[in-house]
Amino acid sequence: SPPPQALNRSTVSTRRMVSVRAAAGSINPEIRKSEDKVVDSVVVTELAKPVTAYCRCWRSGTFPLCDGSHVKHNKANEDNVGPLLLKK
Amino acid sequence: SPPPQALNRSTVSTRRMVSVRAAAGSINPEIRKSEDKVVDSVVVTELAKPVTAYCRCWRSGTFPLCDGSHVKHNKANEDNVGPLLLKK
Ligand code: FES
Ligand code: FES
Repeated sequence: SPPPQALNRSTVSTRRMVSVRAAAGSINPEIRKSEDKVVDSVVVTELAKPVTAYCRCWRSGTFPLCDGSHVKHNKANEDNVGPLLLKK
Repeated sequence: SPPPQALNRSTVSTRRMVSVRAAAGSINPEIRKSEDKVVDSVVVTELAKPVTAYCRCWRSGTFPLCDGSHVKHNKANEDNVGPLLLKK
């Protein structure tokens, strides 16, 4: 087996190859970057709750749903984005 | 009435006061910047068409609806954002 240092180098190299860096001006730094265009569909008859919030800030950990991450983004960037609320 | 030059200066000053410049890192450069947070609601029972596309790129001229402007944004910025499709 290779010496520990060689193993380390290999791991670093692999990570670099799969990492994603957003281009300047991009809105979506991280979500599903392997897709050419991130489009989601909601069959509105299947909505479970009276109100469901969908993310428009591309920072949610539960995308396409909103998890409130727009608050942190807005504060850090003087922005004013928020979700789309679907109401039954 | 003031001389033409004074009138000009006044116009420029007024424009400067109401203009909006997005902070670095902002997602939304222009839409409804007077609002603290841009949240929209859709009553899904009122959707008119089988499929309605809602904007998540903040570049649409018909926001909150998608007008296809995400295509230009994606090309110019190597991005991959797209709309949320609401299906009846
Ligand atoms: S987390 Fe993105 S809009 Fe709320
Ligand atoms: S115009 Fe914004 S997602 Fe289509």
